[in-house]
Amino acid sequence: MNWSNTQDKLLRERARQVIPGGMYGHLSTSLLPADYPQYFQRGEGARLWDYDGNEYIDYLCAYGPNLLGYRHPEIEAAVLAQLAQGDVLTGPSAVMIEAAELFVSLVSHAEWAMFCKNGTDATTMAMVIARAHTDRRVILAAQNAYHGADPWCVPAAFSKGTLPEDRASIVYYDYNDEESLAAAFDEHRGQVAAVFATPFRHDTFVDQEDPNQAYAQAARRLCDEHGALLVVDDVRAGFRLARDCSWSTLNVEPDLSCWGKCFANGHPISAVLGAEHLRKAASSIFTTGSFWFAAAPMAAAVATLKIIRDSDYLERIVAVSQQLRTGLAEQAGTHGFGLKQTGPAQMPLMLFEDDADFRIAYAWMTEAVKRGVYLHPYHNMFLSAAHTEQDIVKTLEVTDAAFEAVKKRIDSLPPAWA
Amino acid sequence: MNWSNTQDKLLRERARQVIPGGMYGHLSTSLLPADYPQYFQRGEGARLWDYDGNEYIDYLCAYGPNLLGYRHPEIEAAVLAQLAQGDVLTGPSAVMIEAAELFVSLVSHAEWAMFCKNGTDATTMAMVIARAHTDRRVILAAQNAYHGADPWCVPAAFSKGTLPEDRASIVYYDYNDEESLAAAFDEHRGQVAAVFATPFRHDTFVDQEDPNQAYAQAARRLCDEHGALLVVDDVRAGFRLARDCSWSTLNVEPDLSCWGKCFANGHPISAVLGAEHLRKAASSIFTTGSFWFAAAPMAAAVATLKIIRDSDYLERIVAVSQQLRTGLAEQAGTHGFGLKQTGPAQMPLMLFEDDADFRIAYAWMTEAVKRGVYLHPYHNMFLSAAHTEQDIVKTLEVTDAAFEAVKKRIDSLPPAWA
Repeated sequence: MNWSNTQDKLLRERARQVIPGGMYGHLSTSLLPADYPQYFQRGEGARLWDYDGNEYIDYLCAYGPNLLGYRHPEIEAAVLAQLAQGDVLTGPSAVMIEAAELFVSLVSHAEWAMFCKNGTDATTMAMVIARAHTDRRVILAAQNAYHGADPWCVPAAFSKGTLPEDRASIVYYDYNDEESLAAAFDEHRGQVAAVFATPFRHDTFVDQEDPNQAYAQAARRLCDEHGALLVVDDVRAGFRLARDCSWSTLNVEPDLSCWGKCFANGHPISAVLGAEHLRKAASSIFTTGSFWFAAAPMAAAVATLKIIRDSDYLERIVAVSQQLRTGLAEQAGTHGFGLKQTGPAQMPLMLFEDDADFRIAYAWMTEAVKRGVYLHPYHNMFLSAAHTEQDIVKTLEVTDAAFEAVKKRIDSLPPAWA
Repeated sequence: MNWSNTQDKLLRERARQVIPGGMYGHLSTSLLPADYPQYFQRGEGARLWDYDGNEYIDYLCAYGPNLLGYRHPEIEAAVLAQLAQGDVLTGPSAVMIEAAELFVSLVSHAEWAMFCKNGTDATTMAMVIARAHTDRRVILAAQNAYHGADPWCVPAAFSKGTLPEDRASIVYYDYNDEESLAAAFDEHRGQVAAVFATPFRHDTFVDQEDPNQAYAQAARRLCDEHGALLVVDDVRAGFRLARDCSWSTLNVEPDLSCWGKCFANGHPISAVLGAEHLRKAASSIFTTGSFWFAAAPMAAAVATLKIIRDSDYLERIVAVSQQLRTGLAEQAGTHGFGLKQTGPAQMPLMLFEDDADFRIAYAWMTEAVKRGVYLHPYHNMFLSAAHTEQDIVKTLEVTDAAFEAVKKRIDSLPPAWA
């Protein structure tokens, strides 16, 4: 364990001069344990290297984008070949059509696709399409669900600089609570344009929840009864639960689905997919971005979607994820820790019982990161098809040592945020 | 003139199956002359090739992103070198700091930078920072100025699916009209968070206008008097007018500036730059995107910003732009056309006198496109440092033939939109 973070600290100091707060957004380590590296020099497969030469098995996968492994040879080759032809031009390239065809062929509810850049672009576009189609204003979204960072959807706790009007027509219901959803429809009868739903509950800081079938079916039924649209926000979970929209596993088809992060294995592209009856509304809105029609990310999407369609990537992710979950559960039991592993194993959140101030999580994960395993104490993690059985074995050696180290100083741990 | 568009038509037909309306956004050719190609296979320097093998001298430059030439060797090499290390990882790479340092060193009003993806991300972030800093709500923006495609700023004529609330706190003044701006401040005394200004008036469909010095200075003065921020939206014009914020040419420094499109020569990245006194507000807001911290576009930005700083790229763009403007003015005179070339020569808009239904513009540009020169009839165009004197000579041969052809059938031209 020759871990150090001298170079990372120097980089942070330099960054503070020219970037407000040194860093911002979801990749900021400002709320993570102090020793976590902020900057990474290199990625390959499931591994990251920081500027101090430390190597990590990475369980964040860039917060999702890395589905098949950093620098996946086939996908990178497709990107380079496209860059050699052209990327951002005065019009799209034909690869855009191929990407849309492939995507639509995989996602059973969808007949068309519109590409964009950010996940937030996709959720905002879905909202606007829903309002255009229904001529209504209200969006029902689950309390605390993350749907992006635009003023209408930025988490309320971080809404500095936004206005109450920005979310005046967003009404919140409780995830997995059919009655709460029905009540919201009743209260806004005739005004609901759409229900937004994440595939499972993946809020930060709290245990994740799988969707219950009754809730998902009620969402579909209530939308139909009230003439509203069902939107599944698959930006975070897409293609880690299914080779289709994530709610296909529940036999519930949305009208619109939002995608991002990983369908081009980290190359910058997001999308809204929609059912036939929304084609007209989708073509009636105006939305665009300087780089939305770039061909290189479309080529990456084509290569990635083909692997999604044709390979056992998903079964492999699930297998290593279960291996990790099982191994950690055993270790935690042995060492006497109340480790709560929630949500799908391939997008795990790990919290500890009786750890309201996150002191155990922070201590344990700091021990792990210093031994080369990068975990996250309050945000769901992501596994990729590049994680191997051997990686999990190595990870479990590290987490075992981390449990051991934390147990020794369990009575003197400081709270996570002092 | 062996031009044809058989392949392009087939691609459009295929696209209509899986993309609403066949295409959307600012690269859609739906309002352009029917013969314009929608899809491009390849770009190099100032040239484009469509799928029918036609070659074009491109005066759109991807609507701005192409500043130094498509597939610029130095910039592409920097991108490939970065891709070989890592792009979207679990944290940023050090090149993000280098990009921020370089950018801030070029832009005199700025002490810090925040990167994002879309131009709209940058304008939205500037709005949120302004509101966070001032604790006020009103944004003053020039009537018909384009600041992006989010519901708060999407052009009113294309606002299907948005709500009146989305723009309830956006108040419009008349560009270049000091009195109109002062009146807006008076009417919303104590409520104005920021004034948004494009560097010059580059609205579509109407003649462009250079900013008058009195207006620009009044904007600065009124902001200071009323405790509001001045935001220059340089997304479209940045680095085509100056090696600094565009209003540096008027000796007016904004508090915030928005950048996008071309500072990484077409690689996907945008930015907000700010003065020191806004650092705290900037770090108080929450904003992020899945791909915002990607290292490859940052490497492209570093390479591009170095060329901007060290080369005569700008003088070369201005020189060929003037050559084109002068040549076209002479030709139009000779052929008896009232061609109005407005705005900076390097971002020209070309409209015709007595052409309310755009029939002359459409006919002339159709003749040009079929001869290998891609112009735009109602949106400003962009020249790049890859356009050569020889390109302009070739272009002028084409436009001369186009004037000649249109003159012959001037009495039988159909209106642009029948």
